[in-house]
Amino acid sequence: MTRSSTVNQESTAFKPEKLIQGERFGSSINVDEINAFLESSPEKRDETQALIQEIVEDPILKTDSSIYDKGKPEERAMTARKISRLALYMEHDIKTARKHFKGTDLIEELQKDTESKLPALNNKDLSIFDKRLSLLHNIDPQLGTRVGVHLGLFGNCIKGNGTNEQIHYWLQERGSSFMKGIYGCFGMTELGHGSNVARLQTRATYNPSSDTFTLQTPDLLATKFWIGGAANSATHCSVYARLIVEGRDYGIKTFVVPLRNPETFQLFPGVAVGDIGHKMGRNGIDNGWIQFHHVVIPREYMLSRFTQVIPSKTPGGKAAVRTQPQLDQISGYSALLSGRVNMVMDSFRFGSKFAIIGARYAVGRQQFANAGQSESQLIDYPLHQYRVLPQIAVPYLVSPVAFKLLDRYYSTLDELYRVSSPATFDETGLSIVSRKLKNLFIDSASLKATNTWLVSEVIDQLRQSCGGQGYSSYNAFGKGYEDWVVQCTWEGDNNILSLSSAKSILKKFAASRRGIFDRSLDSSSFNYLEPPFVRAVLTGQETASLSQLQDYTKVWAIALVKFLNHLAKLVDVTKDLDSVAKLLVLVSKFHALHSMLQAYYEKLNSPKNSHVTDAATETLLWDIYRLFSLFFIDKHSGEFQQFKVFTPDQISQTVQPKFFELLPKVRESIIPLTDAFKLPDGMINAPIGYFDGDIYHNYFNEILQQNPVDSADTPPCADLFTRMLNRRSEFHYVFGGSVETELINKK
Amino acid sequence: MTRSSTVNQESTAFKPEKLIQGERFGSSINVDEINAFLESSPEKRDETQALIQEIVEDPILKTDSSIYDKGKPEERAMTARKISRLALYMEHDIKTARKHFKGTDLIEELQKDTESKLPALNNKDLSIFDKRLSLLHNIDPQLGTRVGVHLGLFGNCIKGNGTNEQIHYWLQERGSSFMKGIYGCFGMTELGHGSNVARLQTRATYNPSSDTFTLQTPDLLATKFWIGGAANSATHCSVYARLIVEGRDYGIKTFVVPLRNPETFQLFPGVAVGDIGHKMGRNGIDNGWIQFHHVVIPREYMLSRFTQVIPSKTPGGKAAVRTQPQLDQISGYSALLSGRVNMVMDSFRFGSKFAIIGARYAVGRQQFANAGQSESQLIDYPLHQYRVLPQIAVPYLVSPVAFKLLDRYYSTLDELYRVSSPATFDETGLSIVSRKLKNLFIDSASLKATNTWLVSEVIDQLRQSCGGQGYSSYNAFGKGYEDWVVQCTWEGDNNILSLSSAKSILKKFAASRRGIFDRSLDSSSFNYLEPPFVRAVLTGQETASLSQLQDYTKVWAIALVKFLNHLAKLVDVTKDLDSVAKLLVLVSKFHALHSMLQAYYEKLNSPKNSHVTDAATETLLWDIYRLFSLFFIDKHSGEFQQFKVFTPDQISQTVQPKFFELLPKVRESIIPLTDAFKLPDGMINAPIGYFDGDIYHNYFNEILQQNPVDSADTPPCADLFTRMLNRRSEFHYVFGGSVETELINKK
Ligand SMILES: Cc1cc2nc3c(=O)[nH]c(=O)nc-3n(C[C@H](O)[C@H](O)[C@H](O)COP(=O)(O)OP(=O)(O)OC[C@H]3O[C@@H](n4cnc5c(N)ncnc54)[C@H](O)[C@@H]3O)c2cc1C
Ligand SMILES: Cc1cc2nc3c(=O)[nH]c(=O)nc-3n(C[C@H](O)[C@H](O)[C@H](O)COP(=O)(O)OP(=O)(O)OC[C@H]3O[C@@H](n4cnc5c(N)ncnc54)[C@H](O)[C@@H]3O)c2cc1C
Repeated sequence: MTRSSTVNQESTAFKPEKLIQGERFGSSINVDEINAFLESSPEKRDETQALIQEIVEDPILKTDSSIYDKGKPEERAMTARKISRLALYMEHDIKTARKHFKGTDLIEELQKDTESKLPALNNKDLSIFDKRLSLLHNIDPQLGTRVGVHLGLFGNCIKGNGTNEQIHYWLQERGSSFMKGIYGCFGMTELGHGSNVARLQTRATYNPSSDTFTLQTPDLLATKFWIGGAANSATHCSVYARLIVEGRDYGIKTFVVPLRNPETFQLFPGVAVGDIGHKMGRNGIDNGWIQFHHVVIPREYMLSRFTQVIPSKTPGGKAAVRTQPQLDQISGYSALLSGRVNMVMDSFRFGSKFAIIGARYAVGRQQFANAGQSESQLIDYPLHQYRVLPQIAVPYLVSPVAFKLLDRYYSTLDELYRVSSPATFDETGLSIVSRKLKNLFIDSASLKATNTWLVSEVIDQLRQSCGGQGYSSYNAFGKGYEDWVVQCTWEGDNNILSLSSAKSILKKFAASRRGIFDRSLDSSSFNYLEPPFVRAVLTGQETASLSQLQDYTKVWAIALVKFLNHLAKLVDVTKDLDSVAKLLVLVSKFHALHSMLQAYYEKLNSPKNSHVTDAATETLLWDIYRLFSLFFIDKHSGEFQQFKVFTPDQISQTVQPKFFELLPKVRESIIPLTDAFKLPDGMINAPIGYFDGDIYHNYFNEILQQNPVDSADTPPCADLFTRMLNRRSEFHYVFGGSVETELINKK
Repeated sequence: MTRSSTVNQESTAFKPEKLIQGERFGSSINVDEINAFLESSPEKRDETQALIQEIVEDPILKTDSSIYDKGKPEERAMTARKISRLALYMEHDIKTARKHFKGTDLIEELQKDTESKLPALNNKDLSIFDKRLSLLHNIDPQLGTRVGVHLGLFGNCIKGNGTNEQIHYWLQERGSSFMKGIYGCFGMTELGHGSNVARLQTRATYNPSSDTFTLQTPDLLATKFWIGGAANSATHCSVYARLIVEGRDYGIKTFVVPLRNPETFQLFPGVAVGDIGHKMGRNGIDNGWIQFHHVVIPREYMLSRFTQVIPSKTPGGKAAVRTQPQLDQISGYSALLSGRVNMVMDSFRFGSKFAIIGARYAVGRQQFANAGQSESQLIDYPLHQYRVLPQIAVPYLVSPVAFKLLDRYYSTLDELYRVSSPATFDETGLSIVSRKLKNLFIDSASLKATNTWLVSEVIDQLRQSCGGQGYSSYNAFGKGYEDWVVQCTWEGDNNILSLSSAKSILKKFAASRRGIFDRSLDSSSFNYLEPPFVRAVLTGQETASLSQLQDYTKVWAIALVKFLNHLAKLVDVTKDLDSVAKLLVLVSKFHALHSMLQAYYEKLNSPKNSHVTDAATETLLWDIYRLFSLFFIDKHSGEFQQFKVFTPDQISQTVQPKFFELLPKVRESIIPLTDAFKLPDGMINAPIGYFDGDIYHNYFNEILQQNPVDSADTPPCADLFTRMLNRRSEFHYVFGGSVETELINKK
């Protein structure tokens, strides 16, 4: 009874494809304009579309529903195949960006250029490939990570901590930037320490006599743990270890440690590696543990941009350590910053995938009716609108802030590289960039935490909104959730990140109360801390309303000020930030929501940036904005009332009615709104969410394809079951239940 | 570097086992008394402990960490083996309950007793086995369900809809109650209809000439879908289908339809069955789809307690249908009621498992310290207390209401059976029992929905509280979540259940406003609707406070009344219940929270029922009660303020301070509080949560055991990776990048 079935297909009562297509054709919303808005410009939109097409049509990179039946070993092998395929795309992408295909081979040239005469790879050179990777994350997150650990974490650790020569050597000469020569992993976390990097226990002891370091794992707890790539694929590891020189402990520094011979993949002596085994998700990543038993590396393998070990010039003399503490700290941030910034982008893309599935099923699925009527589409139930529409709004509100953050990350890192390079060294520049980095850290921490949490909720809520079908692996929610949620834990646990960003915000608030505010650095995401605004809020001159569009951002600014003021008073009494940690986590969330609304508002409010010309489309995009703001005000109405942003009656009479009014309006455009993400079926891999809307046939066919029926066969457990069902009694009663103690089968 | 490692174990910095054991020995809390409180009595506690021991030591029923690496086929086979093992336990358990082991074989006797002279199996006969099943659900939920579909859903469908003869025939004679003879599945859901049972499309058309029915699946959407047991194990199915007699559609009735020959397991003609494949969790259950192509069954296979087809007495005459509409409806409930009631019990047990893991890790794990100090235990961070302790309180608050609900379910169903049996038929009794059933339906729907949601949250929050270790499959959270969350969807989707229970509560509220309240039926869980109380709340005579212990329940009663009053006004205006559906879902949650607090209060307040004599232990249990109430007031402070139960200042000055005061107090006893669930390691299967507290060694050993290290080996992807890393460039530059288009490898 599928497309190829014997039963009359026409008798099918529901026609979800007609409903979905009908809504599509009946709408005047300009889906292309929305897509340009979401992808940040028409040019980038076209680039994204071209890359997506390449991915879903590549015979090795594409992913289909067979992935849902795969176990860990198969996922591992598949991911490895994809990585080796991706290496070829990388070369192409770099050559495309540099428009250099002929004459010489660009990659070979870059590798041979030992004197660094050629301009090194920069963000522009990598922009195509980086986007390809970000899109691949959407179809197969484990692939994105298994490569991302090498290119992102390992590479950025070197970029952030290495001297220019070291950067050139490892990334260019050795080829790691081109996925050639060596393959890196990132060895920070240990079994005993994750969030508390400062207390890692792996030791790198300097040996003056041989001008080398010895890497040592002192005990079980110091085992490097969770290291992506370590179990199978990595040849090198950027190891976070305590620098010990002349008996003194200088704290955590970074070292490049060879693990395996890149030609044979055999482990080097002293290196012990194991697989940490099955995980909730992303089993295609070969996370491993590493122990070092007296592993020796040259001094030059310590990354030395900000800290150097200086051998004694006289034999037997003492080695010295030179360090720039402030910069050293910055460098600590930098390796992880990239991941956090990218996770905000992932939140946009991954969220959009589930928004599509949830929306199409909600429109195509019918259930319940008043007598005599045809059954209602789920999305016409107000409850379903409440459950689904705000979740669809989430990726909309993530997109502008994600692109903004990425740009800011690139420009700040470029600046850091420049002012800290010997040739262009600039002391004042360094101090400015270090404050910019600090702000970037606050914003990215709060946005990473908030958005990865929001998307967990998106997946979870939308799965439930699809009823039983949401629980079928073939509809993507299960694996999606399992793969996604680790984003809330790794590269900075969300609670830790929220705490640390909120603590910084609270400090900024205290400064603002003393009239201190740096307009040049803080004016964007921290504008609610401008002293006049803070004063106006706290004296009641500035009050919350929802009449103008920008009010929907501003209420969050007002809420933040009142919230921070409440917190500051509590801390004044308790003198203990930890005791208000629950509230601090919320402050970070409010800060992120405010940044998201602000970035969205600024973008949509500027015709030049929004690329939206159609009036109805623009109105819809403003409705999404208002919906998002209202949904979270309602969700946090506890805080909004407690801190007297709104009175109880304003919640009942303004916030909630406005919110409930919007839902049916936005509902009208749910299909164009999700079509506008422009993800092809091959990137969705969930038959209840495919474009044609033929939900039931698509789904049933998928099930048949992955689970072919062989009716002649008896089921796998038949033997066991027939024996069980036809068993005789346990004790034969003629013997008074005492002799025959074993089971007798009829057969 | 494990127990069997070469590196000095003593150098291990952290000693989590000392911390955990220290807290255990340093506490005077009476863990045995708490366990009796949780298990509802000392006798039941002992029974539970004995059964748990049997389960974790049974060579086939026990489950270990190897389960986390298993794929669907292995999980299926393992579950089938466990089922056939369980069949033997079942006989024993029935014989034990009846104290009948000698002389005759009880099971054979019951099967042979075609005249039903012997008393049929009752709840007492099955009590041991039912508890065994409930405990098994905790260690391996898929096993519980794969059996539960047969014994629970299939069996209860027959019990609720069959005549006494049919009940006797199918359950006793054919042996299905003893897991003999036949194995049933439950065929309600179709691809096109889940929640809306009334619109199912499978047809059972009466054939007067042969006095039979023909079962027919008219189209793809009418395919029976999700049917647990259908793919592999079932021989029979209780099918929900439209009864068509003489061209008239009588709506949905139930039929027993043979699917496979119990001796050979071959499918009967006309029956098409397939596997619905991989699911987010519980892959050991063989969920399948079924299509009927002209399948003929005798008229007697329709379950006819409340609806009968009466063949014409004259050849060629018209068949008639006799039905008792009111009872017919009740019978619809009854098959699903048992599942819902059991899911509340599951919530207690499953939640407790994760509470243990989260608690032990929180006490044993240390992270961060002020300079020079040893690192803090996670649980000493106020944020961690906030994240962990309320989640531990959840299973505590579920237990009393779960036991109460189970008792009420058994007694009500016994009553229904009695008053609707021909020999003891009682018209008035029937009308009373039907109202009792209705109340049971409201309570069980609201408790099932609320508690399955709460436990999803328990698992998710506690996983995050364990950082990276929570994401390792071996620590149980991943599989636990994947297995658990379907409880929010099946046997009544949580949102649908919440809506329907809240709608009934709102009706009761309206009645109460008119002075109508049935003290004999409604006095327990609906006591907040007593007209004088409602009046007192709405006139402001009764206001919320938190001075007495019972106030912590009463505030919820007050909140419910105000909430319902707000709702009633909204509905008065809109005349549309659907438009306030979001609020209705919350009403159902508030109702459940109130019932949980109420049941807990009543139990702990009565020394006879609580079995708690130790004063410190009692205080602790009251602290848990207050903590739970305050946590949810704070979580719902939006509603509490909006409906003016508390003012914003009361939230800031009373609720939150009281709540934050309790956290460090309860924290002191977190180890005894979770030890008190008395789950052995074999039921936890998460090395970071084992009793001895030796977190790191247990965990690392588990990983080594499931992923043995063979260092001599090169990793599985080595070939691919060496080829990739050592590849030459794509286009050979001497040819200007135009000739050699294929990759050249060095090797
Ligand atoms: C799949 C996966 C892959 C990974 N890949 C890598 C990799 O390639 N390289 C690498 O180096 N690492 C990797 N990690 C490690 C990851 O970065 C860490 O898990 C993460 O940093 C959290 O550290 P932790 O697990 O030790 O948690 P902990 O730091 O032990 O924290 C545990 C819990 O306690 C809470 N907590 C801790 N301290 C405090 C405090 N002071 N106040 C309040 N609460 C606190 C946290 O919020 C958390 O919930 C990976 C992890 C996973 C799960
Ligand atoms: C693993 C698994 C095993 C199962 N085993 C069995 C089995 O053995 N036998 C069997 O018969 N069934 C079985 N089921 C089916 C299960 O009972 C149904 O999935 C469940 O009843 C929900 O129905 P549905 O999936 O059709 O969702 P739908 O009814 O389509 O609902 C989809 C969504 O829409 C919402 N919705 C629906 N109607 C309304 C409305 N009027 N107002 C507001 N919102 C609405 C729901 O809340 C839900 O979120 C199983 C399901 C699963 C996942």
